[in-house]
Amino acid sequence: MQKKILVIHGPNLNLLGVREPETYGTQTLDDINNEIVDLGRRLELDVDVFQSNHEGEIINKIQEVRGRYQGLILNAAAYTHTSIAIRDAVVLIDVPVVEVHLSNIYKRESFRHQSLLADVVIGQITGFGGRGYLLGLHAMCALV
Amino acid sequence: MQKKILVIHGPNLNLLGVREPETYGTQTLDDINNEIVDLGRRLELDVDVFQSNHEGEIINKIQEVRGRYQGLILNAAAYTHTSIAIRDAVVLIDVPVVEVHLSNIYKRESFRHQSLLADVVIGQITGFGGRGYLLGLHAMCALV
Amino acid sequence: MQKKILVIHGPNLNLLGVREPETYGTQTLDDINNEIVDLGRRLELDVDVFQSNHEGEIINKIQEVRGRYQGLILNAAAYTHTSIAIRDAVVLIDVPVVEVHLSNIYKRESFRHQSLLADVVIGQITGFGGRGYLLGLHAMCALV
Amino acid sequence: MQKKILVIHGPNLNLLGVREPETYGTQTLDDINNEIVDLGRRLELDVDVFQSNHEGEIINKIQEVRGRYQGLILNAAAYTHTSIAIRDAVVLIDVPVVEVHLSNIYKRESFRHQSLLADVVIGQITGFGGRGYLLGLHAMCALV
Amino acid sequence: MQKKILVIHGPNLNLLGVREPETYGTQTLDDINNEIVDLGRRLELDVDVFQSNHEGEIINKIQEVRGRYQGLILNAAAYTHTSIAIRDAVVLIDVPVVEVHLSNIYKRESFRHQSLLADVVIGQITGFGGRGYLLGLHAMCALV
Amino acid sequence: MQKKILVIHGPNLNLLGVREPETYGTQTLDDINNEIVDLGRRLELDVDVFQSNHEGEIINKIQEVRGRYQGLILNAAAYTHTSIAIRDAVVLIDVPVVEVHLSNIYKRESFRHQSLLADVVIGQITGFGGRGYLLGLHAMCALV
Amino acid sequence: MQKKILVIHGPNLNLLGVREPETYGTQTLDDINNEIVDLGRRLELDVDVFQSNHEGEIINKIQEVRGRYQGLILNAAAYTHTSIAIRDAVVLIDVPVVEVHLSNIYKRESFRHQSLLADVVIGQITGFGGRGYLLGLHAMCALV
Amino acid sequence: MQKKILVIHGPNLNLLGVREPETYGTQTLDDINNEIVDLGRRLELDVDVFQSNHEGEIINKIQEVRGRYQGLILNAAAYTHTSIAIRDAVVLIDVPVVEVHLSNIYKRESFRHQSLLADVVIGQITGFGGRGYLLGLHAMCALV
Amino acid sequence: MQKKILVIHGPNLNLLGVREPETYGTQTLDDINNEIVDLGRRLELDVDVFQSNHEGEIINKIQEVRGRYQGLILNAAAYTHTSIAIRDAVVLIDVPVVEVHLSNIYKRESFRHQSLLADVVIGQITGFGGRGYLLGLHAMCALV
Amino acid sequence: MQKKILVIHGPNLNLLGVREPETYGTQTLDDINNEIVDLGRRLELDVDVFQSNHEGEIINKIQEVRGRYQGLILNAAAYTHTSIAIRDAVVLIDVPVVEVHLSNIYKRESFRHQSLLADVVIGQITGFGGRGYLLGLHAMCALV
Amino acid sequence: MQKKILVIHGPNLNLLGVREPETYGTQTLDDINNEIVDLGRRLELDVDVFQSNHEGEIINKIQEVRGRYQGLILNAAAYTHTSIAIRDAVVLIDVPVVEVHLSNIYKRESFRHQSLLADVVIGQITGFGGRGYLLGLHAMCALV
Amino acid sequence: MQKKILVIHGPNLNLLGVREPETYGTQTLDDINNEIVDLGRRLELDVDVFQSNHEGEIINKIQEVRGRYQGLILNAAAYTHTSIAIRDAVVLIDVPVVEVHLSNIYKRESFRHQSLLADVVIGQITGFGGRGYLLGLHAMCALV
Repeated sequence: MQKKILVIHGPNLNLLGVREPETYGTQTLDDINNEIVDLGRRLELDVDVFQSNHEGEIINKIQEVRGRYQGLILNAAAYTHTSIAIRDAVVLIDVPVVEVHLSNIYKRESFRHQSLLADVVIGQITGFGGRGYLLGLHAMCALV
Repeated sequence: MQKKILVIHGPNLNLLGVREPETYGTQTLDDINNEIVDLGRRLELDVDVFQSNHEGEIINKIQEVRGRYQGLILNAAAYTHTSIAIRDAVVLIDVPVVEVHLSNIYKRESFRHQSLLADVVIGQITGFGGRGYLLGLHAMCALV
Repeated sequence: MQKKILVIHGPNLNLLGVREPETYGTQTLDDINNEIVDLGRRLELDVDVFQSNHEGEIINKIQEVRGRYQGLILNAAAYTHTSIAIRDAVVLIDVPVVEVHLSNIYKRESFRHQSLLADVVIGQITGFGGRGYLLGLHAMCALV
Repeated sequence: MQKKILVIHGPNLNLLGVREPETYGTQTLDDINNEIVDLGRRLELDVDVFQSNHEGEIINKIQEVRGRYQGLILNAAAYTHTSIAIRDAVVLIDVPVVEVHLSNIYKRESFRHQSLLADVVIGQITGFGGRGYLLGLHAMCALV
Repeated sequence: MQKKILVIHGPNLNLLGVREPETYGTQTLDDINNEIVDLGRRLELDVDVFQSNHEGEIINKIQEVRGRYQGLILNAAAYTHTSIAIRDAVVLIDVPVVEVHLSNIYKRESFRHQSLLADVVIGQITGFGGRGYLLGLHAMCALV
Repeated sequence: MQKKILVIHGPNLNLLGVREPETYGTQTLDDINNEIVDLGRRLELDVDVFQSNHEGEIINKIQEVRGRYQGLILNAAAYTHTSIAIRDAVVLIDVPVVEVHLSNIYKRESFRHQSLLADVVIGQITGFGGRGYLLGLHAMCALV
Repeated sequence: MQKKILVIHGPNLNLLGVREPETYGTQTLDDINNEIVDLGRRLELDVDVFQSNHEGEIINKIQEVRGRYQGLILNAAAYTHTSIAIRDAVVLIDVPVVEVHLSNIYKRESFRHQSLLADVVIGQITGFGGRGYLLGLHAMCALV
Repeated sequence: MQKKILVIHGPNLNLLGVREPETYGTQTLDDINNEIVDLGRRLELDVDVFQSNHEGEIINKIQEVRGRYQGLILNAAAYTHTSIAIRDAVVLIDVPVVEVHLSNIYKRESFRHQSLLADVVIGQITGFGGRGYLLGLHAMCALV
Repeated sequence: MQKKILVIHGPNLNLLGVREPETYGTQTLDDINNEIVDLGRRLELDVDVFQSNHEGEIINKIQEVRGRYQGLILNAAAYTHTSIAIRDAVVLIDVPVVEVHLSNIYKRESFRHQSLLADVVIGQITGFGGRGYLLGLHAMCALV
Repeated sequence: MQKKILVIHGPNLNLLGVREPETYGTQTLDDINNEIVDLGRRLELDVDVFQSNHEGEIINKIQEVRGRYQGLILNAAAYTHTSIAIRDAVVLIDVPVVEVHLSNIYKRESFRHQSLLADVVIGQITGFGGRGYLLGLHAMCALV
Repeated sequence: MQKKILVIHGPNLNLLGVREPETYGTQTLDDINNEIVDLGRRLELDVDVFQSNHEGEIINKIQEVRGRYQGLILNAAAYTHTSIAIRDAVVLIDVPVVEVHLSNIYKRESFRHQSLLADVVIGQITGFGGRGYLLGLHAMCALV
Repeated sequence: MQKKILVIHGPNLNLLGVREPETYGTQTLDDINNEIVDLGRRLELDVDVFQSNHEGEIINKIQEVRGRYQGLILNAAAYTHTSIAIRDAVVLIDVPVVEVHLSNIYKRESFRHQSLLADVVIGQITGFGGRGYLLGLHAMCALV
């Protein structure tokens, strides 16, 4: 049976393509989601996507991973740096989690250099734009 | 007339019993809530319980304490360490607040050692598992 | 055509007038909103007001500014000091943003001395109570 | 056979009741000790109490716990924040230790916010005045 | 009788208009002073202006406020961040003081992010250029 | 014509497979290099590999990238955290650089959490073991 | 009736005169005590002196001040920088306390620059050798 | 021949008696100067006094000590904490310098806890109000 | 005549062999003392041993070294990291002092990484268990 | 036409030759100024010199550079480390500025290690005594 | 069969005896090596010595320990404080490592107080000059 | 006889002219070396130049200065900020050392603001490009 993978996009990523194009490029979130699902199909992974600006909804969604998905690709965006609650939710689930960031967070403000998730996920991919999710799917292949 | 006490459980506590049992034990949140209500009855306190993963809902619930409850037992979980907004809500209400943590937060990651609530509540009980709420009720007895 | 301005009030400001009157005065949020709308009328600005205790709802509301409003007056209250996600939303919109605080945040706890918004807004007005919004509207006049 | 519990009061606690009554209340140490022994009797615990202003005597007393007592309730007062030697003694004994503080140490000077004992005890109870010892006995009941 | 307000401009502000126009605009200090006096007239405030590059002269001038003026608008420029002596002088006088900064100090070097005056004035207005003084006068109206 | 890619392995990576297998797995450096060259062939990239324990040799090798290679995949290992000289060499070359780490550096000692290279490369891939190089090649495909 | 003053000398001061004469001079503690008692007589103060190397004994002695002495001159020596327990004892007594140091503590190791007593005593006299006690007695004259 | 002593009062001390009487008492600077000169006469010291709000004038005055005075009593007030230039001037002169502060600087804002002068003077007297200068004169007696 | 050496064991070392055997081994303090005295005999050193849990007693004992012993081997245990008073006593005596620690203090809690004694002794031996004292005696041989 | 260069000497430099000769040598400021003017003549630069102990006068003098001089050599002495106002003045003028220090500031107190001017001048010359100004003139030659 | 021990001397130790004799004594490295080999013979250990100024060569040499030596005595000199790469090499080998320093590193510059090796070796011997290596051999005897 | 001076260029300086021309200009290292040797000739100094990317080779070269050269001009580039080993080598030689940096290191990343060499050299020249070496030679003239 096909493995199921969830991809979660954090706050403000719904505006991708309109937001600071010099930093994030012109792809919209729909463009990226299409590429993700396409690659998923080629890798024989069944991929769902989810976006929210609410910390609580992201926590709820991560909790749902338990028993329904075999892997989670998580771009918590700004919450990466402030949410211990999302970290706690990640620790709760027992599937591999891959952290993705579109921009190179180490080139940006110093408060973005520290991730509260980095030490509770399998690995981190940062700086490759929307392509980062695709690399994350490749990584997930070997993990699930 | 019986005093009314509200117990608020913060993010991820809905998964108690499944979450890191070596840290939190195997009691579910329902088990704990039953024990809380039972002890409340014996202490002649009318206890309500509430859980949410949303910071905003917890703030709303704390605001509702005004005029409806005579005391609040608050385990804000991960929000304890990051939410000035919950702290502000606690300051707004004029009833005694007791802070409870299941695990000994001083044995865990350093970012859990500081509570943004500790200096605006009456007192703190930490490290006694689900039993901490019961100690909190005992403490509340003398305060309300 | 009249310029449209949005005023956002952050968490716990719904309890203005009841909350620490020695710090914030006895004006309720409705009183302040009435004054804001009145002054807006005199300055020929069409002003909408919004309050929420949810970080996610505030982010959603800020995102709606794009294309609908010509200016934003933002009092993010406690979220000012903790929310990178709200900061990211502010950066996303292309209209002038004025940051307002009722109390003089530099007279309060040290964790309120730093604003995550201050360097991405036009300017900051702090310490003048509800009157701060009115000064913000005056400032907005010259900016839109 | 009845369990034996030792309660240790640290430096300056011999002056309880005369010391900063607005912070610690008017109970004397004798009053508190009587309440402790009484509750112990009701909980079928055999409780001894001890007070000293000498770090070395407190260390000696903690070492005596080994083989003689089944639990230790420890209010090391000022030594909580400065004595690695007392911490080392606590680690040496193999019975549960509960840390108690009369005042809410998080409302006081910043050098009282950190406890050198917190991460080597079972749990901490702080801010409930002399009643904190009684809550500690309740907690001890379940531990021994 | 008309209220008297003093406006003090700190070091290097005498070169406004020639100094980093991309940061401070092209208005000269005379232009700004004219606008201040004009608005003062409309608000029925009698406004004096003063500029100096000398910390000592600014201290002397602030001391003169006592008994002569009903309010002080103070832009201490670079001294804002280094002069405890000016802070002490501000504390000495018993009239409302409003702190103004032309540029958004939070967008500049980190040593400009902290004001030694902020917690001893009524409020702070920052980032609105020369217009900041006018907002300060509006604020002063309600204070004197 | 085929693009040429250089892969540099830093100090102690020559002992891969014998070094802390619980952290790095049992693959030897030769195993990994074979996988890298294989994937390169499939992606139509001509890949060279290099390992050294000498900071100076790594700097020399990076300088050689200029004019000879179209991309660099760099795992500077321990030098990642201490070598400004390697950082300077990376800045000197005008081809995309991808930073790879075998282990999740955020789960290890705190002095490994900061990379002196992270803000001068395109992106970083960390935590996926030898597979990280393969993800780096995938990423490089889109960059050269 | 004559006022009674207690002078407490902390650890290692019993070796004055032999200890680092280039720092502390060649006066022995007896020499200094004689000068103190002599000046006390001239100022009509009844002075007792006490020395101990034990933190606990110093605490006990400070507690005895209550009801027996009208003033305390305290040179806690090394304990000045480490003993919160002595600080707590000082706060407990309700007579003026003057802090004295023989050497200029600000010319010595950085860990001697901070006194845990300084903000709970009336004032501090430092750097004048044995003569510092005599200045302390002069100061005490005006305080008792 | 009589020794000559200079007493320098720093910024804002000209307003003593009107400035924060709860902190500094009701003595004016003239009152204090009279007491200083009187005690000087009794101790057979010829005392001059000087006050300025200008850092540069204080530096000039300290430089004049060379060859004209045998001792300097210096209360640099706010400049104590910010002026390396005054420190440099103190180092230049070859007579004993005694540092005096009226209030207990360790009970005030943390930026007043560090003196840039403390390690280049003989000793420091702090917290005894205007009487501190008199203690300084007593100390000076033994030094000149 | 034979040289006399004193060996001082600090707090909690009386429980060696029972205390955390995985860290300190199963040797008791008596076992170690026997080995020390034996080796002393072979090296023609007359060795005395002393243990105390009291900081004050350790200070007294160190003071006794003056004139009685030609060398001191000091394991101050927990007081190593907190006692400036013991440091002061070490500075007072004029014989070589060798610092010994049983465990490798750099593998333990961060507050054990800094020794207040290290820069006032001849040298430090750490991590070799009870054998460290014997190495200290060897070192002492060449020093006395 | 000859280029005009201004050399500014900061506080206490008027006492050069008398001040800490072991640090600054025995040259007086006049000696140094003569050497500067002489070398200026040889390099065909018209050099003016200026010294002041007043921060405000130095600011005024720097402002005068605009339109009158083609280069500024600035030794702000102690103000280097404390004066943001002088830094602001330096930024205001549009000619090259060279920072000179007589002593090697990195061998002195840590508060002299940081210059508030260093990042707004062309370059810095430190540690060569009075000869540093001559090196500064050589450097200026190539800049104007 | 005899155990083989390697002794590695780090950078600049080749100049021992000429380098700061007041700190390191007048023994040359050859003198010390002779003493080491001699003592080795007496202890029936076969000792090799090695010195290099190159970090990379030291890493290579440490890697060679695997399978060839039963123990390593390592004085990494300056690299002790900066080389994570040497630390990683130490972790790679599976024989006991003893860290030696000639001078008491805690009496020197603060950047020498922290060793990157200390928590991955068995123990550390510091401050006994060339004799430290001999103590290290004694320690090694019991370890191999 | 002519004095001999060595000039050492650190890592990546071999690429001068190609490396970030906006920061370092277009001069190649050969161009600069020619200018250095030329000026040396005019100043009657015999100058050798050396460049390496290897920390160890630079240490070796500095050690060779002893007995062969009368002065060293050192631009350690990136190693300036990380190499205690080079610092140690500088301390070993007994000739004057002048530190040169091409760019103004205080305008660059914060980790370049601190030099590990600055307090062990005679003086530092920074920010004047290749011309800095020539100023260094001028300075050396007066030192050798």
